[in-house]
Amino acid sequence: MEFSSKLIEKAVNEMSQLPGIGKRTALRLVLHLLKQPKEQTGFLSQALLNMREDIKFCENCHNISDTKVCEICANSTRNHQTICVVEDIRDVMAIENTGQYKGIYHVLGGKISPIEGVGPSQLNISSLVEKVKSGKVIEIIFALSSTMEGDTTNFYIYKQIADSEIVISTIARGISVGDELEYADEITLGRSILHRVPFEKTFKSN
Amino acid sequence: MEFSSKLIEKAVNEMSQLPGIGKRTALRLVLHLLKQPKEQTGFLSQALLNMREDIKFCENCHNISDTKVCEICANSTRNHQTICVVEDIRDVMAIENTGQYKGIYHVLGGKISPIEGVGPSQLNISSLVEKVKSGKVIEIIFALSSTMEGDTTNFYIYKQIADSEIVISTIARGISVGDELEYADEITLGRSILHRVPFEKTFKSN
Ligand SMILES: [Zn+2]
Ligand SMILES: [Zn+2]
Repeated sequence: MEFSSKLIEKAVNEMSQLPGIGKRTALRLVLHLLKQPKEQTGFLSQALLNMREDIKFCENCHNISDTKVCEICANSTRNHQTICVVEDIRDVMAIENTGQYKGIYHVLGGKISPIEGVGPSQLNISSLVEKVKSGKVIEIIFALSSTMEGDTTNFYIYKQIADSEIVISTIARGISVGDELEYADEITLGRSILHRVPFEKTFKSN
Repeated sequence: MEFSSKLIEKAVNEMSQLPGIGKRTALRLVLHLLKQPKEQTGFLSQALLNMREDIKFCENCHNISDTKVCEICANSTRNHQTICVVEDIRDVMAIENTGQYKGIYHVLGGKISPIEGVGPSQLNISSLVEKVKSGKVIEIIFALSSTMEGDTTNFYIYKQIADSEIVISTIARGISVGDELEYADEITLGRSILHRVPFEKTFKSN
């Protein structure tokens, strides 16, 4: 693509760094901003900068939060002995939407993926294992998506906590295998939490 | 959508103002930025701000440019008496890519669209009419997309310049090179028959 303006070229190049945004789409978005009042670009840029600069992660569960401890962890009416292990904030939002879950979360920040170069040390795994070893946890629910990477991550964590006397379960697979959690409908997702099954059963059935 | 962070919420809301970007996509993009180094968000925001703040439009053809007059208009080897009328910069880029056109452009900045509230006064139409009336133009080529809005815009301009002694043409509509005839829509196929060209011309142009 040859541009008549370096300013456009730079904006398109930066925009097309985002996943799923090609150069054509980036150009369309940038031209849209040019037609809108200058303030819109200002608001967008400022919102992204503020977000990236000031975002906090909950000290306890690693959920994205504006405070040191997120609202869920700070809520004493929730069951702090049951921890639902999820990939990212989108999964927390999806499960919260079902209204079926009253425990707390542990946000890993991703899945183990050798192909994408994500190893266990880049994820919030050790703090989860510590929590379990502290003896304050009664149940762990794995709610990662049912993919190769999700299963690998579940099993990696499972090996380190299997000798604890806690209940380890995974959400029921009412959700079709391979589907992303965030796109599931609320009822299916809600049921899959209610009907969670002991973790061992998931590899006996395979 | 309920967010655990106002910073995320604001970033998602601003991002989803962009056309074709829903809240889910916006959240995916914002979470991606959170996983990347802070500089990436900085570069993106700065590129958008600089672009929106400092962009210029060519005094002559309204093409986007970093200088007062764009490179095409500043090029004295091009034919300044032939003007190709296009909707936006993307069309200039597409036509320049063909290497087939040696005239200059006139960028309208959109099409007349009562539905989207775009009237003739919001487009660069009067300056085009003035150029024609100045007597320095020999040919006008309409290259707007062949939609209701495109046709309306063509006709609106045509009425104002029809009494000038210049050639007024539109780009040929037809079956794309390499496309199977059977998959073409009826209107395109119909036009390509009506506007058939002498056979000899097809190898002269290649
Ligand atoms: Zn928390
Ligand atoms: Zn120009």
